[in-house]
Amino acid sequence: MTLKSQVEQQIAAGGLEAAREAIRDYAIRTPLLPFVGDGGPVIRLKAECLQPYGSFKVRAASNVLAGYSAEALRHGVACASAGNFGQGLAFAAARRGIPLAVHAPDNAAQVKLDVMRSLGATVHVHPFEDWWRIMMTRQTGAGDGLFVHPVCEPGVILGNSTIGFEIAEDWPEADTVVVPVGGGGLISGIALAMRGLGHKARIVACEIETAAPLAAAFTAGYPVTIERQASFVDGIGSTRVLDEMWPLLSELVDEVITVSIAEAKRGVRLAAENSHLIVEGAAGVSLSAALGCRGERVVAVLSGGNIDRRELCRILGDEVRPRP
Amino acid sequence: MTLKSQVEQQIAAGGLEAAREAIRDYAIRTPLLPFVGDGGPVIRLKAECLQPYGSFKVRAASNVLAGYSAEALRHGVACASAGNFGQGLAFAAARRGIPLAVHAPDNAAQVKLDVMRSLGATVHVHPFEDWWRIMMTRQTGAGDGLFVHPVCEPGVILGNSTIGFEIAEDWPEADTVVVPVGGGGLISGIALAMRGLGHKARIVACEIETAAPLAAAFTAGYPVTIERQASFVDGIGSTRVLDEMWPLLSELVDEVITVSIAEAKRGVRLAAENSHLIVEGAAGVSLSAALGCRGERVVAVLSGGNIDRRELCRILGDEVRPRP
Repeated sequence: MTLKSQVEQQIAAGGLEAAREAIRDYAIRTPLLPFVGDGGPVIRLKAECLQPYGSFKVRAASNVLAGYSAEALRHGVACASAGNFGQGLAFAAARRGIPLAVHAPDNAAQVKLDVMRSLGATVHVHPFEDWWRIMMTRQTGAGDGLFVHPVCEPGVILGNSTIGFEIAEDWPEADTVVVPVGGGGLISGIALAMRGLGHKARIVACEIETAAPLAAAFTAGYPVTIERQASFVDGIGSTRVLDEMWPLLSELVDEVITVSIAEAKRGVRLAAENSHLIVEGAAGVSLSAALGCRGERVVAVLSGGNIDRRELCRILGDEVRPRP
Repeated sequence: MTLKSQVEQQIAAGGLEAAREAIRDYAIRTPLLPFVGDGGPVIRLKAECLQPYGSFKVRAASNVLAGYSAEALRHGVACASAGNFGQGLAFAAARRGIPLAVHAPDNAAQVKLDVMRSLGATVHVHPFEDWWRIMMTRQTGAGDGLFVHPVCEPGVILGNSTIGFEIAEDWPEADTVVVPVGGGGLISGIALAMRGLGHKARIVACEIETAAPLAAAFTAGYPVTIERQASFVDGIGSTRVLDEMWPLLSELVDEVITVSIAEAKRGVRLAAENSHLIVEGAAGVSLSAALGCRGERVVAVLSGGNIDRRELCRILGDEVRPRP
């Protein structure tokens, strides 16, 4: 059965409502904050950077675990993650007393790995290519329990859908929702919830110009492998849309906006200066895309806040001019 | 009639409920965020740094203006403010089309004065002693309209009380509420609302050790003038509790905690790192005091987020060690 069919089947069986219940003790209902800008569309910020451990992933992680019995998890659970999903899963697993093994790429942020370890997870660091192979094959080679994929997993997508419900309830008049796309699980979940409620908002994906596989897939009509340059925007931007995700993304996404590195930095800076939120690069992309998009009442989903402090201060410092 | 009697009279006349209504279109209901710490009491953060213009003062300012008719405001409105109140009042006055004159001390942050001007306010900068005289006498010498005091004003205190309602509703089990004290209007408002609801939480004031007039007043039994050293904690810490405020503060405050500069910086750092919030020094004092206070379920009121970016980055940088 395809991922899309699995998701549709779970939704038909009440999976959206169940997800709201499942995450209640783990994730918070984040505020939808009015953004005080300088003209442009009316923007509200879905501030997922305020979640425990600083990212929306705690929703997905807690919902995935809720879908399995203690018996199914008796050998523990394993995942592949560059950071945020692993942190969310470590938090949820620790609360339920389930052993967790996280497989991370060697470019993962040390601070995120430290948090996972402090929550009791075992962390294995792999060369990037080996890690990507685990992502694709779901084989860790370590026999460390039930494998949970950070993106292509119905429970992950339904966990993310809880954001869509909250947006629809808090701002029914929103006409556009801008969401950063890494694997595509976040935007798919949000879109499925809003469509399920009959909400008509346009669902706009945003990517960083140095790694924009979704824009490339829409141009080609199918997933293609692209060139990717590394940047401070580390939460999104792979080399290719996952084949399993394409049927969902091609149906649910109305538009893709690509943002430059300078614009992404501007988004991070505006979130800090105008809204007093610390956001990571992907969320800066989202705010920047929202500022430039068509739409009058626009939600920018700020996916997370886990940015390196030195990077944050470099970005904030760029605009600091000495006083006369 | 004393300020305390005026406040009590307004409360008896439904002023608390009226304030909630009056601020609705100006201030947001801020979230009460679980703080993920490292042991200690269970802490939730009342994140007033997320208000438009980054401080709780927008509540007070919008409530004060709501208390006056267009006729009473026909010559405009004036206030004395070092920044946050002036910003909130500029925002509320601009929405109602009322001319505003702000009288600021010469140590006010330039960025705050710029925001007031961008909202249409006229800003007058005075030497600190002249400014303090305006604060004490309410005489601007400029004939610029109805004078609104940033602290000793029933509408200000009742505007702040809306925070107490929200805390009581969102976390009825809270046993301690920690509030930074500058003039004392914030803690008085919160305490009045919570007491009015019959809520039993201990009301704990916090001050910075370099300027702690409330602790000195409690020790002496009445307001006394103290030595004050300037620091990055610019939102609180005067040289003396205002005589008008003392009857309220002496009745409503259960305890005063004094925090060192290093602890205040730690509070700012933890808010940024663990909660992805940018907070000003006074809010760092609050979080730090909450971490060390007696109590099991503690609210730290994070009064605002208007910290100089360079100061923020210095504080964040203090703890950054080069990676091996």
